[in-house]
Amino acid sequence: MNYPDGRLALWLTLNAVIGIGPVTAARLLEQIGGSIDALFQSDETQLHGMGLSSEQIRQLRWPSPIVEQSLAWAALPGNLLIPQDHPLYPPLLREIPAAPLLLYCRGDLEALSLPQLAMVGTRHPTNAGKDNASRLCSELVRCGFAITSGLALGIDGVCHQQTLACGGITLAVLGSGLDCLYPKRHQGLAGQILEKGGLLISELAPDKGPLAEHFPRRNRIISGLSLGTLVVEATEQSGSLITARYALEQGREVFAVPGAPQNGQAIGCNRLIQQGAKLVLSVADIVEELPEWGARLDPSAIPSEQQHNSELPYADLLDNVDYETTSVDTVAERTQLPVEVVLGRLVELELVGAVMAVAGGYVRARRANHV
Amino acid sequence: MNYPDGRLALWLTLNAVIGIGPVTAARLLEQIGGSIDALFQSDETQLHGMGLSSEQIRQLRWPSPIVEQSLAWAALPGNLLIPQDHPLYPPLLREIPAAPLLLYCRGDLEALSLPQLAMVGTRHPTNAGKDNASRLCSELVRCGFAITSGLALGIDGVCHQQTLACGGITLAVLGSGLDCLYPKRHQGLAGQILEKGGLLISELAPDKGPLAEHFPRRNRIISGLSLGTLVVEATEQSGSLITARYALEQGREVFAVPGAPQNGQAIGCNRLIQQGAKLVLSVADIVEELPEWGARLDPSAIPSEQQHNSELPYADLLDNVDYETTSVDTVAERTQLPVEVVLGRLVELELVGAVMAVAGGYVRARRANHV
Repeated sequence: MNYPDGRLALWLTLNAVIGIGPVTAARLLEQIGGSIDALFQSDETQLHGMGLSSEQIRQLRWPSPIVEQSLAWAALPGNLLIPQDHPLYPPLLREIPAAPLLLYCRGDLEALSLPQLAMVGTRHPTNAGKDNASRLCSELVRCGFAITSGLALGIDGVCHQQTLACGGITLAVLGSGLDCLYPKRHQGLAGQILEKGGLLISELAPDKGPLAEHFPRRNRIISGLSLGTLVVEATEQSGSLITARYALEQGREVFAVPGAPQNGQAIGCNRLIQQGAKLVLSVADIVEELPEWGARLDPSAIPSEQQHNSELPYADLLDNVDYETTSVDTVAERTQLPVEVVLGRLVELELVGAVMAVAGGYVRARRANHV
Repeated sequence: MNYPDGRLALWLTLNAVIGIGPVTAARLLEQIGGSIDALFQSDETQLHGMGLSSEQIRQLRWPSPIVEQSLAWAALPGNLLIPQDHPLYPPLLREIPAAPLLLYCRGDLEALSLPQLAMVGTRHPTNAGKDNASRLCSELVRCGFAITSGLALGIDGVCHQQTLACGGITLAVLGSGLDCLYPKRHQGLAGQILEKGGLLISELAPDKGPLAEHFPRRNRIISGLSLGTLVVEATEQSGSLITARYALEQGREVFAVPGAPQNGQAIGCNRLIQQGAKLVLSVADIVEELPEWGARLDPSAIPSEQQHNSELPYADLLDNVDYETTSVDTVAERTQLPVEVVLGRLVELELVGAVMAVAGGYVRARRANHV
């Protein structure tokens, strides 16, 4: 936590150079061997050689006022500035293309080290959408996830609120500076997030307003912080789909809650599922796709689904299906039942997960129920 | 249509032998070179050599009374018996494992040569499910499909009815003999199906009752007749899932209409989608998966979806994306916009289908809208 102010100033200086964004900065740092100090120790010829203009080199030598302003901001209680080489900079976020050089944070930095799941959605949810957001939020918190979202009205807000309501930790990534909280109506919510050990994050200087162009880029941070992104309800034009797209580009899981074709607020989710997002009914569908995380979970935290399958049908027939491939004819012979009957029952047993169809017949499933 | 009665009697005889189902029959016919006549011309030694028991050989020589009864039934007006080598036996159905040896039919045989889509679902649909069934049925009929289903209460019934209401042809495959129509409540519907040029089909002798074990097997015929199977609403225990499973085994497309997690009648469909069924919102999602069929369609038959995208955003930026890979930096240079802004807009343009992300940047999509 004792990160040197001098080095912080270097990151702020680099971040403020016009025409150097995260991608260019990453290239420069890679060329120089990774260290911000080495970059600033380079002479003009070297910097020119790396493609910097004279004006950019001047800006590296004569820092913008934003550097001093940001250092002063970071000195205020509760405020924190986390550059890329800070020990608490989230490793998952560092992996993404165009990772922010610096994170302006307010709140409890420990939240950054929790496993996060992003939950996003429309600003105009249906009641069903709000219900799903609340239920899935509660289930995810019970499984030990922190919930990351964008503090927007609608689904974002429901997710932050519900996480707090069930004692979880939530992180909000803003599309404006931390001193220009947006939307204003969520000022109280932001305060509660902080009170309950959560974190507010922005890559923008604290005085930046909520410009429309900030939001699509902001979404890459929401997905980049998270093991996966869950879209609860989204129209076809929803910004949530941008977050999902970033998650995909970042190699993270994309999850979506389906809805009826009649529900215009579900079209975006349904389209995401068509494009390969995992259809989610309950948290079990999420944990299944995060095996490393799932292995750390107490299984009792995952609510088991309504199982009508507890007493399996056709137990006698099932006993005649081996754990190695068993042909339908063999089962018919053993059970003295007509092939037609055997086939019908095997299909039913397959549907409840008791057997699996394989080339040459059926095998008995190791687990009778896929809880 | 002038199929010889004598050969029909051979098929009926083979079909009635106890212990010979469609799979064994197919093996015997293959061993003998494909013809039913050749099978009956084989001597006892040959038949023993093919694995038939003495009792089975006796039954081949001394046909069951069911043969005469079926021939008499087929002589009545409106009734038809279609053996596997009949020119009107549907080629798609002949392809499946365990294709029925004979189809007992009533109605207009030309229906068998129409491209069929199976629509199945729960006997207890929600209003949304019924709406979806009706809407998709109308769209499919407009695209030239005949609709095949199981005459059950619920979704099956809605699909038959709606097909008739919009002037389409519909086929009903029964789980009982054609003289034991089930459910009784759909006797009137069956009559309308016949009046409007449709067809009733069963592989069972006309006097067979609706035994529970008939229905799973019946479902393989529904899927086997069809280019694909669309499940509209289904619980996790629904027989519709058996039809979907058969469609999969038969190498046919499986389609499912999604629903909200709250809708218990949609769980089966949502699970099917998780397992790889195509999520369907409109007929366009179906035709897309049937390219050979889609190519024959009048595009105006496919209802275009609500397009909010008619005027594309960021037209100036779009003009700077080439049909070959264009890097984000290039677009930023050409447009003189910050990389962040360019990235955000490209993502939005991608979401409306105007550009595609590729390795190294973006390419312009050939079609601005995916209608």
